[in-house]
Amino acid sequence: MTVEGMFEVRTTSRVQFLDITSAVQREVTSSGVTEGVCWVYVHHTTAGVTINENADPSVVEDIIRTLERLVPMRGDYRHAEGNSDAHIKASLMGFSQAIPVRDGKLALGTWQGIFLCEFDGPRRRKVSVTVTSAP
Amino acid sequence: MTVEGMFEVRTTSRVQFLDITSAVQREVTSSGVTEGVCWVYVHHTTAGVTINENADPSVVEDIIRTLERLVPMRGDYRHAEGNSDAHIKASLMGFSQAIPVRDGKLALGTWQGIFLCEFDGPRRRKVSVTVTSAP
Amino acid sequence: MTVEGMFEVRTTSRVQFLDITSAVQREVTSSGVTEGVCWVYVHHTTAGVTINENADPSVVEDIIRTLERLVPMRGDYRHAEGNSDAHIKASLMGFSQAIPVRDGKLALGTWQGIFLCEFDGPRRRKVSVTVTSAP
Repeated sequence: MTVEGMFEVRTTSRVQFLDITSAVQREVTSSGVTEGVCWVYVHHTTAGVTINENADPSVVEDIIRTLERLVPMRGDYRHAEGNSDAHIKASLMGFSQAIPVRDGKLALGTWQGIFLCEFDGPRRRKVSVTVTSAP
Repeated sequence: MTVEGMFEVRTTSRVQFLDITSAVQREVTSSGVTEGVCWVYVHHTTAGVTINENADPSVVEDIIRTLERLVPMRGDYRHAEGNSDAHIKASLMGFSQAIPVRDGKLALGTWQGIFLCEFDGPRRRKVSVTVTSAP
Repeated sequence: MTVEGMFEVRTTSRVQFLDITSAVQREVTSSGVTEGVCWVYVHHTTAGVTINENADPSVVEDIIRTLERLVPMRGDYRHAEGNSDAHIKASLMGFSQAIPVRDGKLALGTWQGIFLCEFDGPRRRKVSVTVTSAP
């Protein structure tokens, strides 16, 4: 059984890690799947998705600041739209995450949350959720 | 239902991002799956796979140049084969991508393409495609 | 059919890439699945999972040393626990890997192994394995 969902989020600054764990869990719950795998997919090239700690917000702040140090917004880039750094950072984080589903819940670790990684906002972003289970 | 495909590509330079979107879509089409998830898997350790913009070729050029700045080909590496940078870059991009399938098509975003990331070419590279769907 | 497994590993130093290929293959074997996909998932935020060469141990040593050069343990971080670098490195490597299963075996490339990436050890780490197949 494969169940599909989709939701949109609005980011509010150029670079922002948005905790989408609850929104993804809502899709898992409404899918009715109890055991399986959930894929979160971001349909963009300047935003990605990662997993990391959502207890202390300074963790994702450190990720953002480090990515900016390694791949600065202003640099010697060929792509003329001024968002080359965003494309590169998105590929470094990735565009999908697969999380196991157990007892109808995302089987995240204690400290894990799912973050949409906005690198070229503010924008409206589309996230797909696909949940697969034994039939 | 799980359907498996495989194809090979030939890269033509040491570092090259090769757009394999059409080849992957061909596997999805021939699988007959209309709704599900498609996994693209690269069976190598010095090549990876990522998703990014395939409209303006300067985007992947910028990714390549930035990876080279961060992880230069020549550096203080232990591995004696001269391709340590390629192993590291491949792990940074990743070896698989999962893309939702809707109506028999890869549900990529408007600007998204799938790229084999060659870091130690030119070579022949093997790509697996697995498409899973509700039975 | 979806079959779930889980195992724990103990890491022995702060930073260590632990080859878990055999442990993952054991879960695939005991699942009885012959054709499908296997997901390896790490339930942590300071450890990740990647694929790379497991023949010459200097390859993963080079990955570790390069990540340390790019994201040093000591740096200007906000998160007060002294392991910001570990969170960042884990997001760079990723928290899951999807590997095709063919004939009951992980269809890894000749040189590929699966590595748990410890960045804040020594610790006990939890790894989930989910194997999905046609019913």
